[in-house]
Amino acid sequence: MADLHLLSPKGFRAGAVHAGIKSKQTPDVGLLVCDRVAAAAAVFTTNKVFAAPIKVGRENIAGGKLRAVVVNSGNANACTGKQGEKDAYAMCAQTGKAIGCDSTDVLPSSTGIIGHLLPMEKVKSGIAGAYAALGESEGHAHQFAAAILTTDLVRKAAAVRVKIGKEFVTIAGVCKGSGMIGPRMGPPHATMLAYLTTDARIPSRALQKVLNAASDASFNAVTVDDHTSTNDTAAILASGYGASIDTPKKLAGFAAQLDEVCQSLAYQIAKDGEGATKVVKIVISGAASLADARAIARAIANSPLVKCAMHGNDPNWGRIVSAAGLCGAKFDPDRAVLTLQGTAVFRHGTPLRFDAEKVSAALKAPEVLVDLTCGLGKHAATVWTCDLSKDYVTINADYHT
Amino acid sequence: MADLHLLSPKGFRAGAVHAGIKSKQTPDVGLLVCDRVAAAAAVFTTNKVFAAPIKVGRENIAGGKLRAVVVNSGNANACTGKQGEKDAYAMCAQTGKAIGCDSTDVLPSSTGIIGHLLPMEKVKSGIAGAYAALGESEGHAHQFAAAILTTDLVRKAAAVRVKIGKEFVTIAGVCKGSGMIGPRMGPPHATMLAYLTTDARIPSRALQKVLNAASDASFNAVTVDDHTSTNDTAAILASGYGASIDTPKKLAGFAAQLDEVCQSLAYQIAKDGEGATKVVKIVISGAASLADARAIARAIANSPLVKCAMHGNDPNWGRIVSAAGLCGAKFDPDRAVLTLQGTAVFRHGTPLRFDAEKVSAALKAPEVLVDLTCGLGKHAATVWTCDLSKDYVTINADYHT
Repeated sequence: MADLHLLSPKGFRAGAVHAGIKSKQTPDVGLLVCDRVAAAAAVFTTNKVFAAPIKVGRENIAGGKLRAVVVNSGNANACTGKQGEKDAYAMCAQTGKAIGCDSTDVLPSSTGIIGHLLPMEKVKSGIAGAYAALGESEGHAHQFAAAILTTDLVRKAAAVRVKIGKEFVTIAGVCKGSGMIGPRMGPPHATMLAYLTTDARIPSRALQKVLNAASDASFNAVTVDDHTSTNDTAAILASGYGASIDTPKKLAGFAAQLDEVCQSLAYQIAKDGEGATKVVKIVISGAASLADARAIARAIANSPLVKCAMHGNDPNWGRIVSAAGLCGAKFDPDRAVLTLQGTAVFRHGTPLRFDAEKVSAALKAPEVLVDLTCGLGKHAATVWTCDLSKDYVTINADYHT
Repeated sequence: MADLHLLSPKGFRAGAVHAGIKSKQTPDVGLLVCDRVAAAAAVFTTNKVFAAPIKVGRENIAGGKLRAVVVNSGNANACTGKQGEKDAYAMCAQTGKAIGCDSTDVLPSSTGIIGHLLPMEKVKSGIAGAYAALGESEGHAHQFAAAILTTDLVRKAAAVRVKIGKEFVTIAGVCKGSGMIGPRMGPPHATMLAYLTTDARIPSRALQKVLNAASDASFNAVTVDDHTSTNDTAAILASGYGASIDTPKKLAGFAAQLDEVCQSLAYQIAKDGEGATKVVKIVISGAASLADARAIARAIANSPLVKCAMHGNDPNWGRIVSAAGLCGAKFDPDRAVLTLQGTAVFRHGTPLRFDAEKVSAALKAPEVLVDLTCGLGKHAATVWTCDLSKDYVTINADYHT
């Protein structure tokens, strides 16, 4: 798996260049291209304020097929009115013309500041440059992964290669996300961006179904600031050169592998959350319903008080229990058990004696586990988040001006 | 109004002492006593994890009458099991015995760290000391207001004296709140604490009704971190020495004055929010429903991205519009108009040209107005919050250990 990357599935190439949209000298326009029509599926933000590329992306994914993804960073093309829509269409048109496909077979994405028109001269030269730079090496995959970043500190990628039935399937992905992370994506509805490639031969309807489920347990289960973006997008393209996913059993196998790739990507987003010094994994079990389990996990993950306590390695568990109680989900402290890094601190309504210094030391780990058993049912959910640091404030108090 | 205070309404005395629950040398146990049985009403937290004093308070307010409020700071008596309940009952019993009333005519409150048993020896000596210190001067009102504070930097008080019909009515209040502020109080269900006194002669049912409405437009409309506490409480005691509120018109007049006092208190909480450097007032109008208006206002007020932008005096309005779109309320950017400190920055789906430096300078004010008109209906809501600073992280990363 060490050598696998976004372009390992047969049929894909990528290219990226620095077109000057971002001031930083890193790639800001990227292309991901399949050499034939790929079965495709996508999920998009459920924010009622959605960017122009989301509108166009929804239209273009409707047919269940794609040839390419064109993406820029440094500008979200959101809240940009009719001109913004024209610009998103223009990105698709230029890409389609370059690779020889309909513009409707191109998925556009943008990420960055909201409310500014795209600098289209730069975008155009960027697309041309990215097209000229297309290739299938690991380096090309890295360039594309870099082109989608904004406040991210590191590239994010994951891939698996497994046997399904008697054939091998490769699934790979890259993503970005650090701030404005609270994806709630619906079918076919993150500025989380994730692009997945696979060589599987799989119908687009099946692909959409497994992507929906994989997103719910990964991208939709990561939160940095709970601010659902105007531009969140996760898309998968299947080139069809590899194994046929043509039985329910094979589909289940494919889904499990896709889950793994998506969860790895989501974890990397939490780890690279703006200002983050650690990942906090919130595991809720015994909830009365799946919705309750998710609501409790999100309420804990989104509490600034909990996130600051985690930053300070402070076993101030009252903030966690009270967050569980405030979200509207069924919750009864008299039936709940809370464990921090393996140490039970609260059980059935009553505080437990524990060694605060020892637990505080355990909280210094790069990944912290908050485990809350509700005692009300059989439902479970996991959410990944990060701590809240002064760096978060520094990054976000002066992003625009 | 300058000379009015919590004990201006006839019939009330207060006392407070430092009993050693808080390490800081400030009062931490307080008593507020009415010299006769007062008509009373209260609202409490809707968090499913509620402190022992909330359980006892709900029981004791059921009769619509009170003689006293006993309160400690430094310890929330929350998540403390059966012993916590016994301790809350014991606070009422001691207070009742001292002033000569049933323990059920005493409302107990606690605020501070969650999950630690009350140091009852200190609490007992505190109640005895507060009783011995009872008096009706402005200084006594100040001592009581100080006794309820935790991370607050300043005392909070408001009062009005107006003619209703042909008689004067005085309404006064004190409150605390700086962190874990996201009250959602229900009847008779806010660690916001607020205690109100009035000399009005008014039945408790009418008092409860006007307190519910006043809370919704004040305490329930302020958020620092959206973390609904285990201990939120707002209570009002009416001594009955003053004007009779015995017609619908007089009740409306009383309600309007109570609203004013509660809104002043709520504003003071936002202003003293943990780490706050400014108050941000979010005014939503033209929403499709009251629930939508409140949901949009809260989503904007609670976005860490919006709060950091406000801290940085950054007119990054895309964060505001996108917050409006993510909360599930009806919202259409094509019909919305957003104004920051009087400058329109977004209208009907399109960004407006504005002088970013000028708006940034305007955002440096101690109170910032975010005005969003939805264009969808007639409903409006106002929410008060504060900015998110590095000091917030400092305060909350190391509160416990």
